[in-house]
Amino acid sequence: MKGKLGRGVALVGAGVGKFGAFPRKDSRDLFVEAFRELVASVDNKGFDPTEIEALFIGNYSSELFEHQGHLAPILADWVGLTPRAALRVEGACASGGIALRQGVLAVASGLYDVVLVGGVERMTALPTEAVTDTLATAGDVLYEFPAGFTFPGFYAAMATAYAARYGMPYEALMEVARKNHAHGALNDKAQFGMTIRAIMDRRLAKAREKGGPLPGWRDELDFLRDPGANPPVAWPLRLFDCSPITDGAAAVLVVAEELARRFTDRPLRVLGTGQASDACLYGRADLTSLRSAREAAAQAYTMAGVKPSGVKLAEVHDCFTIAEVLAVEDLGFFPSGQGWRAARDGATHRDGTIPVNTSGGLKAKGHPVGASGVAQVVELWKQMRGEAGPRQVGHDVDLALAHNVGGTGQTCVVHIFGRG
Amino acid sequence: MKGKLGRGVALVGAGVGKFGAFPRKDSRDLFVEAFRELVASVDNKGFDPTEIEALFIGNYSSELFEHQGHLAPILADWVGLTPRAALRVEGACASGGIALRQGVLAVASGLYDVVLVGGVERMTALPTEAVTDTLATAGDVLYEFPAGFTFPGFYAAMATAYAARYGMPYEALMEVARKNHAHGALNDKAQFGMTIRAIMDRRLAKAREKGGPLPGWRDELDFLRDPGANPPVAWPLRLFDCSPITDGAAAVLVVAEELARRFTDRPLRVLGTGQASDACLYGRADLTSLRSAREAAAQAYTMAGVKPSGVKLAEVHDCFTIAEVLAVEDLGFFPSGQGWRAARDGATHRDGTIPVNTSGGLKAKGHPVGASGVAQVVELWKQMRGEAGPRQVGHDVDLALAHNVGGTGQTCVVHIFGRG
Repeated sequence: MKGKLGRGVALVGAGVGKFGAFPRKDSRDLFVEAFRELVASVDNKGFDPTEIEALFIGNYSSELFEHQGHLAPILADWVGLTPRAALRVEGACASGGIALRQGVLAVASGLYDVVLVGGVERMTALPTEAVTDTLATAGDVLYEFPAGFTFPGFYAAMATAYAARYGMPYEALMEVARKNHAHGALNDKAQFGMTIRAIMDRRLAKAREKGGPLPGWRDELDFLRDPGANPPVAWPLRLFDCSPITDGAAAVLVVAEELARRFTDRPLRVLGTGQASDACLYGRADLTSLRSAREAAAQAYTMAGVKPSGVKLAEVHDCFTIAEVLAVEDLGFFPSGQGWRAARDGATHRDGTIPVNTSGGLKAKGHPVGASGVAQVVELWKQMRGEAGPRQVGHDVDLALAHNVGGTGQTCVVHIFGRG
Repeated sequence: MKGKLGRGVALVGAGVGKFGAFPRKDSRDLFVEAFRELVASVDNKGFDPTEIEALFIGNYSSELFEHQGHLAPILADWVGLTPRAALRVEGACASGGIALRQGVLAVASGLYDVVLVGGVERMTALPTEAVTDTLATAGDVLYEFPAGFTFPGFYAAMATAYAARYGMPYEALMEVARKNHAHGALNDKAQFGMTIRAIMDRRLAKAREKGGPLPGWRDELDFLRDPGANPPVAWPLRLFDCSPITDGAAAVLVVAEELARRFTDRPLRVLGTGQASDACLYGRADLTSLRSAREAAAQAYTMAGVKPSGVKLAEVHDCFTIAEVLAVEDLGFFPSGQGWRAARDGATHRDGTIPVNTSGGLKAKGHPVGASGVAQVVELWKQMRGEAGPRQVGHDVDLALAHNVGGTGQTCVVHIFGRG
């Protein structure tokens, strides 16, 4: 692998819509919302959106979620960019990260100077069973689906394998959920912008209204330990170990580095990009680490010329709490077998040594699958520019990383950003 | 638009599987078949497939056709290329052309030296109604689908608009079908590798076996005029105006130009690439031309520094016969309103001034939608290298073009190739 880009690439704008359940909105509505925030985010108010030369759209399954294929040119039309080239890329829940990578490569190739990278997914209009079924097609439908595996089951298998190998207590996963909800409570775009405590208090208030005996929850862990409040989904994973079903979209503006100052005095530079694949889960020797994540991270670190210890903030793919544990190890932030301690000990909290998922992560912010990889980058954009509002981290973020996983790790994309 | 690539890109291998109805094969089986032919096509027998650094897969709707999402890493695994980056791109029936374009840009960016571009679609396992429904999602499911439009209807609207404007007799469309079946009869990979005459003779033989009165068909046009033999599908389009439902795959090997001679002494050069989008059909001012095709062609011609008159051979997107008529005008081979004469007068025949669809086109070769744009390039590869066997054109093909349309023209991709 050569692993070098022929031209520098920068981010000069970013937008994300409100994440949540909006069953009456479709992908177009969601995308337009993110696009509008992106246009408003460009510091140079002379920015004309028709300067955008091409659109790279991450979307997992508009076919199954809304029976609409060929989505990209429709989105281009909806934001007034016909006849610009528009294409969709798909790599399950890594579709957004792949879209970013394709946009970066297209600019690096010299063909384009200014491209839009978007991610979108409309999910909540379908019944939950249909969503679960659709998501399961990101595994292997020949060998895994007939065996009864859907996504909570896949990640439950990883959690049990990890716990068995490294002695992780399952309550460590609850600490990941607590942290990400605490972060999400500071994000007004989050689907579940509430701490676990606030969720617990709301339930207690409702129980009081109803009358009868009150649950005896004293704190967040108490609440999460209660199978009534936090029921098992696929053992050992419970409800609060799982990211939700979400509608949402996100977008970033990607330009040739030499043009970045036309758009803003504070661009981000794309320092590294990596992508790798893996066999489906049934074909892997090890369930306690994602090979694709380690490969993609190695590519991105090498290109950027940085080490994991230099990263000041990361958005990682916490589709399930165990996924964050694997991610912080696969990215080299913690040694193998130690990642489960990170949330518990505070290292990955907003005020920790390596804050992870300050947006609330997929867990609390929500997980509109094709949008998630782009929304991660929007969070890095805000944090690196000091525009993250109440959730802004205290230290200077001059190097940040996004880690976006597709399926059970058949795809992983890693991007590293610096300041321009 | 800058419209220049930072690095030269070449094709050094190409393969295509047999096209047809193989309901017991899935996308993996089909892709492996094309991959094997690609590996065998590389002249330097020292080629090691693990040199391939990434896979760009064009696929329209594995979700709806085989209930499998996240296809690309599975295909990578199936041909032994895990953990290489693998991604799927989608732009309806232009997915293959888009995949090629992304592969070309990835090499031009400097990141990769050697990439595989594949296209695959498995379609025939579903009932025809489900296939028609799935294809219709490449239009606008909000505004077109509820009005009763499926793809024969879309292209029928274009055919009537074109005929009304330019005085085309509908029999001109039959001449396109006759030509492409005549070409397809020389292609052993074609789904319908038979002339219209041979199809007619077969029917006559069957009628003789059965006894009773024989149809009075004297020649191919007689046969095609008979509504019994060539029934209307969506007026004025009849059965033989429509490309079939097909299973198939194709692949090409794309490398940095400076490395091409490591693989072959006879590489093809990617001289031009263009892509553009358009509104869905209901939103267009003109149904007699595809704006996206004219835009994409202009980009590709400009990049290549050539004119339409320099093109010696073209594969164009004849999903319906009328589509070929529009294509030869949109590409500048014929003036507006004159394209319908081309097949009738012989200009686009194999021995004509600008042979079009020597492979048989989508009409006779078959149309596995995500594969078609790549299979077009495989035909150019064979013709430009003098390896097209019985259908090799008589003149030297030093400049050739591929034109791949998605939907009703919401997407169009054009590539131009020269010899290395």
